[in-house]
Amino acid sequence: MRPRVIDRRGPASGPKRVGVLVSGSGTNLQALLDAEVRGALAPATIDVVISSRPEVPALARATAAGKPALVVDHTRFADRDAFETKLHEVLEQHHVELVVLAGFMRVLTERFVAHYPARIVNTHPSLLPAFPGIDAPAQAIAHGVKVSGVTVHFVDASLDGGPIIAQVPVLVLPGDDAKSLHARIQREEHLLLPDVVRRLAAGQLSCQGRHVVERAK
Amino acid sequence: MRPRVIDRRGPASGPKRVGVLVSGSGTNLQALLDAEVRGALAPATIDVVISSRPEVPALARATAAGKPALVVDHTRFADRDAFETKLHEVLEQHHVELVVLAGFMRVLTERFVAHYPARIVNTHPSLLPAFPGIDAPAQAIAHGVKVSGVTVHFVDASLDGGPIIAQVPVLVLPGDDAKSLHARIQREEHLLLPDVVRRLAAGQLSCQGRHVVERAK
Repeated sequence: MRPRVIDRRGPASGPKRVGVLVSGSGTNLQALLDAEVRGALAPATIDVVISSRPEVPALARATAAGKPALVVDHTRFADRDAFETKLHEVLEQHHVELVVLAGFMRVLTERFVAHYPARIVNTHPSLLPAFPGIDAPAQAIAHGVKVSGVTVHFVDASLDGGPIIAQVPVLVLPGDDAKSLHARIQREEHLLLPDVVRRLAAGQLSCQGRHVVERAK
Repeated sequence: MRPRVIDRRGPASGPKRVGVLVSGSGTNLQALLDAEVRGALAPATIDVVISSRPEVPALARATAAGKPALVVDHTRFADRDAFETKLHEVLEQHHVELVVLAGFMRVLTERFVAHYPARIVNTHPSLLPAFPGIDAPAQAIAHGVKVSGVTVHFVDASLDGGPIIAQVPVLVLPGDDAKSLHARIQREEHLLLPDVVRRLAAGQLSCQGRHVVERAK
């Protein structure tokens, strides 16, 4: 088993073994799987997919791609700590170095996050810090913004408040509703998330406090 | 004197006589003056420039462009109400229909704003609702965002919270500090603000609650 690197500045070469946590349809998981097939995720590899809910489409996507697909059903644990202990155990069994939240609907505790400093990434359908929390595209439409977008960020114990790795703006168009805006945001998300995973695995990114920067050559 | 239209949905033809409120260097004022000279502001006209401070460069810019340039020095009034009463009086004397805040450093009260419903616009160097208040580019750099931008919005009694008219994203580049980011935001601002004034004057925009939309033909 390779040693897990916990230096916040990241190793000279980045985390390559990826565990993807899902809860539902798994469209971001599919984008990652497709990127891996066409060689666009290397040197990262998807080594396990874990769902917090049984029988979701994301599990079928993982299985179809020949990936270990496991359920850690949060409703079957006495409390959050017990659930996260099991999650951590499965990730360790698969030697996961980088955890990607892809539509994973459980908030992770500080205790869990501490196992993976600057090693858990999440994707959020707004330009954070605007519109954290649920239904971000609907929040953006209600507020009347003209520009929203997608954010990929490191996860810390705050709600959608960890260091920002990458963002792409998406224009709100006349006549947009939350659904049409979200669909255009997702198209960018499906390009951005695999690219971030690739760059992290290649050791191209360094996290210094709140700032994620290109690593000096 | 033409009647002042206070219908929130706006008149079929928009407000054309513009008063610009300034406090300092006046680079946004210059962008408006330049746009007017090259015909890019029509049917809007800049009819008066008012500074809350004496002897600022913005006044010289206005004078050089042949515009009435007046000082309403906020330090010379007993209180905010007296200051705003004078401001309103000068704007009325010049039959101003649309008030543009261009680096104007005084917060306007609800009482003043009520004179110009959906007729006061401000420009802010971030993608609101992210980073309201002062030093928005520095806030953006400190937070570590990868995308910021510029917002032109209607002014209401909230701090930078009025209905958003237009936004343009600006990417944060590696090595950016608050100054370099602000400089790139200002380049977009100097294009966006005159364009918004033109579209408002042409009656192309309609404000419905928080939503500013293209007027139906």
